[in-house]
Amino acid sequence: MKLYSFSLAPNGRRVTAFLNEKEIELDVVELNARKGEQLKEPYKSMNTFNCVPFLELDDGTVISECLSICRYLEGIHPSIPLFGESNKEQAIVDMWCRRIELDALTPLFYAVRNTVPFFKDRVLAGTRMEIRQEKIFLERAIDMINLFFTRVEKDFSGKEFICGNFFSVADISGFFVFAAMNMLKIEIPDHCNNVKKWRDKLFKRKSLQFD
Amino acid sequence: MKLYSFSLAPNGRRVTAFLNEKEIELDVVELNARKGEQLKEPYKSMNTFNCVPFLELDDGTVISECLSICRYLEGIHPSIPLFGESNKEQAIVDMWCRRIELDALTPLFYAVRNTVPFFKDRVLAGTRMEIRQEKIFLERAIDMINLFFTRVEKDFSGKEFICGNFFSVADISGFFVFAAMNMLKIEIPDHCNNVKKWRDKLFKRKSLQFD
Repeated sequence: MKLYSFSLAPNGRRVTAFLNEKEIELDVVELNARKGEQLKEPYKSMNTFNCVPFLELDDGTVISECLSICRYLEGIHPSIPLFGESNKEQAIVDMWCRRIELDALTPLFYAVRNTVPFFKDRVLAGTRMEIRQEKIFLERAIDMINLFFTRVEKDFSGKEFICGNFFSVADISGFFVFAAMNMLKIEIPDHCNNVKKWRDKLFKRKSLQFD
Repeated sequence: MKLYSFSLAPNGRRVTAFLNEKEIELDVVELNARKGEQLKEPYKSMNTFNCVPFLELDDGTVISECLSICRYLEGIHPSIPLFGESNKEQAIVDMWCRRIELDALTPLFYAVRNTVPFFKDRVLAGTRMEIRQEKIFLERAIDMINLFFTRVEKDFSGKEFICGNFFSVADISGFFVFAAMNMLKIEIPDHCNNVKKWRDKLFKRKSLQFD
């Protein structure tokens, strides 16, 4: 089993944080996505979606998508569970993963790729295409983030982490929401004190220390 | 256990299709999202994200997000598995769910909400806010769909369904990609014959017959 990843990119780091939390060591092949190494052979054909990270199993099967890689690893290393234990807990973790991914991370990643000059010819992940960067994606991300945190704030009272009193893979996704907001200079809405406490807790967590 | 859903909306229908496939019957409370019933009490407080569908468990826990609801139901009704059986299969299903959701369904749903006049004051799901509809979201969805299917096409040879030779919850998500494309009059790229066969197979499937 081998992980192909770019350790400076958020989706690579989501897997790194997961490995840190679970104290798993993997064979890692570093592909420099800034230089487009994942777009060259043999990597290009290994993952038709041309993104990193992806995990190659011993039988040659390739699993891409950071959370699917984590889910696979949870299956073979169940201790220190990060996807929840009971069926109910697992559904709650899955729900928060989706809410965070769809309502916060996705619009933020769109905003980054549509505003940061470096992404000019790579607005769509895993491509080098001529797609215009459009500022509206930043504006829309700000609207969505404000809505997202207003909803999260209400739901947070009495909980230590986003899914309850246990740290989960959803908290890892949450960390990268705050990291992308820092990059784009988007603030947490003033009234969201539970959210601010959550952010502070995540930024102090050992598994989430990246330069 | 009670499901709150709007049976005419894609995310409601994703759960309906899942129930059909698994032959599960649930108590369903129909909330008319067009009339904003999910924004009124007691529903508003039950799901702080103010969307349907959501599932209320007997202990009062609420699970929102269509795929998280399906995942919970798979846990208590494991027969006719739709999330895969082995750990490897489950990772593959999860990967395709994410690829379909992030690279196809999400941009299509953005496009629908940013172009269809009905969604003028509800551009963000579960709100009634003044957010401008922007045509760029349709243009971007078309670029993303073309890229998505070009990638899927390469990966489809020899497979009966998107994850292999078994029908899964990822195929249900795939059906709603094609349904949204029909609504927006977006075509499958000409060269994608495997994709066209997949669409035809899904449109004939018994669990996916709506109106």
